[in-house]
Amino acid sequence: MAKNIKMARINENYLKLKGGYLFPEIGRRVKEYQNSHPDADIIRMGIGDVTLPLAPTIIKAFHDGVEDQSKKESFKGYGPEQGYEFLREAIAENEYRSKGIRMSIDEIYISDGSKCDTGNILEIFSDQNTIAVQDPVYPVYVDSSVMGGRTGILGSDGYYENLVYMPCTAENNFIPSLPAKKADIIFLCYPNNPTGTTLTKEQLKKWVDYARKNNSVILFDAAYETYISEPEVPHSIYEIDGAREVAIEFRSFSKTAGFTGTRCAYIIIPENLVAFTGSGESKPLHPLWMRRHTTKFNGVSYPVQRAAAAIFTEEGKKEVREIIQYYMENARIMRDSLTQTGFKVFGGVNAPYVWVTLGNQYKSWNMFDKLLDEARIVCTPGSGFGPSGEGYLRFSSFASRDNVIRAMERLQKVMF
Amino acid sequence: MAKNIKMARINENYLKLKGGYLFPEIGRRVKEYQNSHPDADIIRMGIGDVTLPLAPTIIKAFHDGVEDQSKKESFKGYGPEQGYEFLREAIAENEYRSKGIRMSIDEIYISDGSKCDTGNILEIFSDQNTIAVQDPVYPVYVDSSVMGGRTGILGSDGYYENLVYMPCTAENNFIPSLPAKKADIIFLCYPNNPTGTTLTKEQLKKWVDYARKNNSVILFDAAYETYISEPEVPHSIYEIDGAREVAIEFRSFSKTAGFTGTRCAYIIIPENLVAFTGSGESKPLHPLWMRRHTTKFNGVSYPVQRAAAAIFTEEGKKEVREIIQYYMENARIMRDSLTQTGFKVFGGVNAPYVWVTLGNQYKSWNMFDKLLDEARIVCTPGSGFGPSGEGYLRFSSFASRDNVIRAMERLQKVMF
Repeated sequence: MAKNIKMARINENYLKLKGGYLFPEIGRRVKEYQNSHPDADIIRMGIGDVTLPLAPTIIKAFHDGVEDQSKKESFKGYGPEQGYEFLREAIAENEYRSKGIRMSIDEIYISDGSKCDTGNILEIFSDQNTIAVQDPVYPVYVDSSVMGGRTGILGSDGYYENLVYMPCTAENNFIPSLPAKKADIIFLCYPNNPTGTTLTKEQLKKWVDYARKNNSVILFDAAYETYISEPEVPHSIYEIDGAREVAIEFRSFSKTAGFTGTRCAYIIIPENLVAFTGSGESKPLHPLWMRRHTTKFNGVSYPVQRAAAAIFTEEGKKEVREIIQYYMENARIMRDSLTQTGFKVFGGVNAPYVWVTLGNQYKSWNMFDKLLDEARIVCTPGSGFGPSGEGYLRFSSFASRDNVIRAMERLQKVMF
Repeated sequence: MAKNIKMARINENYLKLKGGYLFPEIGRRVKEYQNSHPDADIIRMGIGDVTLPLAPTIIKAFHDGVEDQSKKESFKGYGPEQGYEFLREAIAENEYRSKGIRMSIDEIYISDGSKCDTGNILEIFSDQNTIAVQDPVYPVYVDSSVMGGRTGILGSDGYYENLVYMPCTAENNFIPSLPAKKADIIFLCYPNNPTGTTLTKEQLKKWVDYARKNNSVILFDAAYETYISEPEVPHSIYEIDGAREVAIEFRSFSKTAGFTGTRCAYIIIPENLVAFTGSGESKPLHPLWMRRHTTKFNGVSYPVQRAAAAIFTEEGKKEVREIIQYYMENARIMRDSLTQTGFKVFGGVNAPYVWVTLGNQYKSWNMFDKLLDEARIVCTPGSGFGPSGEGYLRFSSFASRDNVIRAMERLQKVMF
C-alpha cells in the first residue's frame, strides 16, 4: 500500500456510480409534478412499500416488548448481535424445519433489513471475485458491488465493466441463462424484483449445480417468498439438493408482514458453506460473517424482535396471510386490467409486482412521465433496474383496493 | 483486477484479525466460571451496558409509535433513510443550535448504532489512507480497519502494521501526542472508552489544527458526551473553530438514554467537509455518505425514532438526567472505594467508566481472572482494548447501586 499520501482520500469507486438511486429520482419527479399540480390526486404504485398496518397480534407483541423496556426486571440492553434465540428458533422451525429443510439456529442472523444484508455480505468476499447479476435487478446489488470496488467503470451502454449481466426479458421468458463468463458470486432474486417472475425447482437446480461445479456462491434473495402461490415454485433455495454447500439466503419481514418501517430481516449462512483463499484453501463463511456481524452491528431492537416473533404464532400467521391475500387480489385485478388495456403482462402470481412490456412505442421513463402526467399514477420505470428493463414498467400491488381500481380505470382511459 | 480466478474467494483481511472480539471472550470466561460454580452470585461491571429501564416519557412515545403502526391512517412504511425530520430537527436544536453550534438537519443521519456508524464510515474513504487510533481504544475502530484492508498484519507485539497507534497511559495523563507519522484519518473517542478521560477544548483544538494543516479527517466518537460534568470539557468537536471542515461526529442514544437494546444513534457530516481524490481534487463527503446510507441502509424503526425524539421533551430531559446522575453516583462510589483499596484511579468524572492501573504485579487478564474467581466480579481487562491497556482494568458504572456497593466491598476484601 502506498502510505505517503498527503491527504485523506475518498473511495473513488463511488464516483463510478450512475447518478441518482432509482427511487429518489422517482421521488424527485413526483415532487416536481406535485409542485406544479398541487391538487393532483396521485396514486402511488411505484416504490414497493406496503400500505396496510401491522397485524393485531404483531402490534400486541410489539407493545409487550416496549413494556419490557419500561421495567428493571424485564429491561433488555445489548442483545445477542445475531438476534434473540426466541426469534431464530421460531424462524428455523416455521420457515424451514416444518418444511423439511434442515436448519440450525446458529445459521440464522437477524438484521434490520435485506437491503443492508445484501449490500454488506460482499464485505466477507474478496474484491477479486466476478459478480453476476440478473438484468433487470434490484439496484442495491449492483450499486453495492460498485461502491466496494467489485466492478469497473460504467459504460455508455449502461453496463458496468467486470460485472456479469444475465438478461431476463420476455424473449427468454425471464429465465436467465447460465453466465457465459465464469461467475464467482451470483445474485439471484426469486420471486423476482422487479419482474415478479419465478423459477421452478428444476430451473433453480441448474444454478445450484453450476455453483457446485464452479465453486461459486449464490446470494439468494427471497424477500418476496411469502407471495408464492404455485406449488412448483421453491420457497427456499435449500429445497434444492446441495444448496447448503453453495448458497446464502436472504429473507425479510418487510414484505412478509409489513415491516418496511419497522425493520427486521434475516440471513442464512449454512455451517458447511465455504469460499477460498487465493492459494485455494477452503474457509467456512459462517465465522467470517459472525465476525462481521458482531463487530459492525449491534442487534435489532428488542421490541422489534418481539413483534417479528409474533408472526409465527397461530393468530399471527392467519392475520398475515389475510394481508398477503389482499395484496395478491390487487395483483390479480391489475393483471386482468392491464391485459385488457393491451399490455403484455408478467408476474403478479407469485409476487406482488406486475411487470408489463411497452412494445416499441415507449421507453420506460417516457411512459412513466406520461402516466404521471395524464393519469396521475406513479409506477416504476423498468430501465431503472438495468438496461434489459428498458421498455418495461413495474406496478406494485401494495396499494389500497380502491386506489388499485381507480388507477386501472385511469390507465385504461389514457391508453385507449 | 485479476478476473480469471476459478472460485469464490474470501476477503482475506479477515484472517488478519486477532482471535475473538473482546466481549465474547469475556462472555466465554464468565460462562465457564458459571458452569463450574452454578450458584455463584456474579456482579457484572464488564460490558458497558446500561441496566436501568427506559424513562417513562420515552416509553410512552415508543408505545405511541407502535400504535401508529396499527392503523392505516398513521401507518409508516419506508421512512427517509437518513431519519425522520422530527428527530433530526430535535437533535439539531437541542444538541447543537441551543449550544451555539451551527447545524443543518441535512447534516444529521439517524442510524441504528454508533458501532455500525464507526465501522461503516470507512467505506467512503480509500483503503490507501493511513488510519490513527488511540491505544487503548474501542476495538471496533481497529477491527473494522483490518476487515476493510486498511492495515497490514498483526505483529507479535499486538500492533497491526500500517496503523498508527497513539498511546494514552498514565505516563502522558491519557493525552495522546500528535501522530509522528502523517495520519489521514484519526479516530478520537471523547469522553474516552475505555479510559473515561477527556480533553479540554484547548487540547482538542490541537487535533483540529493538525487535521486542517494535514488535510486529515477526524472521526470523533462522542457516544459518552452526556456524562460530561466539567465545564471545560467540550461536548461536541464542533465547539472548536474550524472543526466543521475536518470532523465527522458520532453520537448515540445507547448510553445517553438507555438505548443499547432499543438501538438508535446518529452521525454528523458537515456540508463543507471534504476529502480528496488521488489526483488531489477535493470532494465533499456528504453526498458520498448520503449515497452509502441510502443504498445500504433503510432507516431506523419508526417507533424507535419516536422514542428517541421523546428524550428532547422537557419531561424526557429531566428523566434522562436523573438516570445519568444515578450512574455517575455509582462512578463516584467506585472511584472512592477503588482509591481506598490502593488502586490508582482515572476517569469516572466525565464518563461512566473507571480505569484503574494495576501496577507491576498483575497483567490485565490475570486480574480479571482473579476478580472473577475470588470476588465474583466481572470487569474488562484493559489489554483487550489494545497493547497500551495492559496493566489496567475498566469498571463500568452501569450497575445497580446495591451491586456497586457489594462489588466494592468484595474487592476490598480480596485486595487487602
